[in-house]
Amino acid sequence: MLNRRRLLGGAAVAGLGTAAGAGAVAALAGHGSPVPTAVATPLDTGTATVAFHGPRQAGVSDDPPAHAAFVAFTLHPGTDRRALTRMLRLLSDDAARLTQGAPALGDTDATLAVLPARLTVTFGFGPGLYPAAGLEAPVADLPPFKIDRLDRRWSGGDLLLQICADDPLTVAHTQRMLIKDARPFAAVRWVQQGFRRSPGVQAPEHTQRNVLGQLDGTANPRGAAEIDPAVWNPDGSSTLVVRRIRAEIEKWDILSVADKENATGRRLVSGAPLSGTAERDEPNFTALDESGLPAMPDYSHVTRAHVTDPELKILRRPYNYDGMPNAAGQPDAGLIFAAYQRDIVRQFLPIQQRLAERDLLNEWITPIGSAVFAIPPGCAEGGWIGEQVLG
Amino acid sequence: MLNRRRLLGGAAVAGLGTAAGAGAVAALAGHGSPVPTAVATPLDTGTATVAFHGPRQAGVSDDPPAHAAFVAFTLHPGTDRRALTRMLRLLSDDAARLTQGAPALGDTDATLAVLPARLTVTFGFGPGLYPAAGLEAPVADLPPFKIDRLDRRWSGGDLLLQICADDPLTVAHTQRMLIKDARPFAAVRWVQQGFRRSPGVQAPEHTQRNVLGQLDGTANPRGAAEIDPAVWNPDGSSTLVVRRIRAEIEKWDILSVADKENATGRRLVSGAPLSGTAERDEPNFTALDESGLPAMPDYSHVTRAHVTDPELKILRRPYNYDGMPNAAGQPDAGLIFAAYQRDIVRQFLPIQQRLAERDLLNEWITPIGSAVFAIPPGCAEGGWIGEQVLG
Repeated sequence: MLNRRRLLGGAAVAGLGTAAGAGAVAALAGHGSPVPTAVATPLDTGTATVAFHGPRQAGVSDDPPAHAAFVAFTLHPGTDRRALTRMLRLLSDDAARLTQGAPALGDTDATLAVLPARLTVTFGFGPGLYPAAGLEAPVADLPPFKIDRLDRRWSGGDLLLQICADDPLTVAHTQRMLIKDARPFAAVRWVQQGFRRSPGVQAPEHTQRNVLGQLDGTANPRGAAEIDPAVWNPDGSSTLVVRRIRAEIEKWDILSVADKENATGRRLVSGAPLSGTAERDEPNFTALDESGLPAMPDYSHVTRAHVTDPELKILRRPYNYDGMPNAAGQPDAGLIFAAYQRDIVRQFLPIQQRLAERDLLNEWITPIGSAVFAIPPGCAEGGWIGEQVLG
Repeated sequence: MLNRRRLLGGAAVAGLGTAAGAGAVAALAGHGSPVPTAVATPLDTGTATVAFHGPRQAGVSDDPPAHAAFVAFTLHPGTDRRALTRMLRLLSDDAARLTQGAPALGDTDATLAVLPARLTVTFGFGPGLYPAAGLEAPVADLPPFKIDRLDRRWSGGDLLLQICADDPLTVAHTQRMLIKDARPFAAVRWVQQGFRRSPGVQAPEHTQRNVLGQLDGTANPRGAAEIDPAVWNPDGSSTLVVRRIRAEIEKWDILSVADKENATGRRLVSGAPLSGTAERDEPNFTALDESGLPAMPDYSHVTRAHVTDPELKILRRPYNYDGMPNAAGQPDAGLIFAAYQRDIVRQFLPIQQRLAERDLLNEWITPIGSAVFAIPPGCAEGGWIGEQVLG
């Protein structure tokens, strides 16, 4: 993990104060000793790895890397339980190797496998995968919402591979290898490529900014004590909602800062709720502003999305997208909204229903894609993702 | 520049050996003094800036940041010399501010302007811009090559903005602001978004790898002594060729490593020419291999592209692209080939002609877009890009 690596890096560098540090100082003073490499590149972003094996899949509660490809597949007719098993064994083996910086067994470009950059591959099973295996699906498509303008191009999917890494070439190579191995079993349904801030760019005190300039993810549960009851079932499973949310940037841009803040319920620069002063302040829905009105507008995004019960929170893990503007120069940009929770119906759905019903922000965002996936538990070395479901 | 910043970062950290370093060591030893922030994040990727003003434009001979958007415009009918002047004053002012981490004057999302991450905006003038201003164009479209499968969608353009930064959100925001200000004068013709390795990921001894796994840019001139005579005219001007080169990855992938190396003339892992052992070894075209054949195949890419005269070299500054695979899972990936040189006809054209005529690699790469631009000199503070041409 980058944070742990940062600490290690810091410790290593700090340690230079004793031994190697003397060398570095000597070099600066012209004594000719070389400055140790560790000083020049303390953050080894390229070789950093995230474990693949374990009771829970990676790519969920770990810190999101800078780049992601969400790859959804439609199973070929006839891909049955046995075929699914073969496919998942193969893809699990690929993921186990690639995430640790080793080429996949059938890797056709092994030189691109050596810098995993915190690569994770997270498997999601869509509602259609289960009947293909003769099983009942534990997840179902979301009901339609009146705000939806869904395009089939960005919706549904029997299998999802969420590929994340701090390097876009690593993501591209992993995507290519996994798609190749999935091809006998499934067709590519959609691919959504997204980004967060580059390694080293994020201001540490601030959550991710989205393309509308909003801090995004402030209300997330943090740390195992908050994340576990919201995200992980006892068996290591979870669920994922992926929605593609187009930003109506042209309309958003003509708003004043005050109007933008009114729509979200947060200050644009600090991310603080309008009832508070710092990003992490809990919104106070009874506080009044100077005019005697509620400081948190009744229909602001934060007011409508707010969840108090820690077990009903969702873990947002979104990525920005920025496609090709049209000839008139209007952008095609927005958010690949990805949220993990134990139970979609109990946790995600009520929030989405409140937002769809009445959220000021709806005027400037449009859901154009929607998909749901069960996240099966992780696997031990030698195992494969899905073995508890299909095995 | 990142390299300079790295050195500075190294120096700052090394300096800790004397004063602050004592504190860091004390903290490790449990004495409670906080580790200075400089140790935890020595590479301040987000706030790093590249100067905008100067006799030459930025974004050419500086180290390429991780992300780029090449944005080409078609001038609206009636955009004459006076209108061009207004547009370029406006865009220069935007670029001068944004590259230094300040919002553009009309910035509608100022929060996204604060982390420039080595942002550069480089202006190129296409062959069509000059006649619109009543001038003769100093650059002309390339002649057709038999290998070309050009799509109008990726070709031509009256104005180019090459936007580069180490952060994709910074690129997206800059692209949006500049397009907004260009809209009264020009329509977006095409946008090509590309990437190199993320900050901190590139193995320092190796050149950029492309999506085919090849080291890319090894033969580039390096340092002012090599770059200046190849790239910069005495008045600070240059030229740029942008070609979109699709990688026929599916066909490439079925080659053996030996066949791949034969096509390029370099070892895949090290990038060394087949006549040598290290990436930077000069190819030896008279050396024989163990079978008594030329070590460098006659029609390998390196053999055909090789230039000896330092003044005839070109400076490649390419970015990878990876679009949406099709339903069959075949990738849409390749290279945004960008090359800077003093004179396209004298430097770029002969190389391209030799490659088009006979380059083994042609079987696995297809040019699908092509555009040329004059790169006008830079400007001083208060000036604007193009003032020497249109002023």
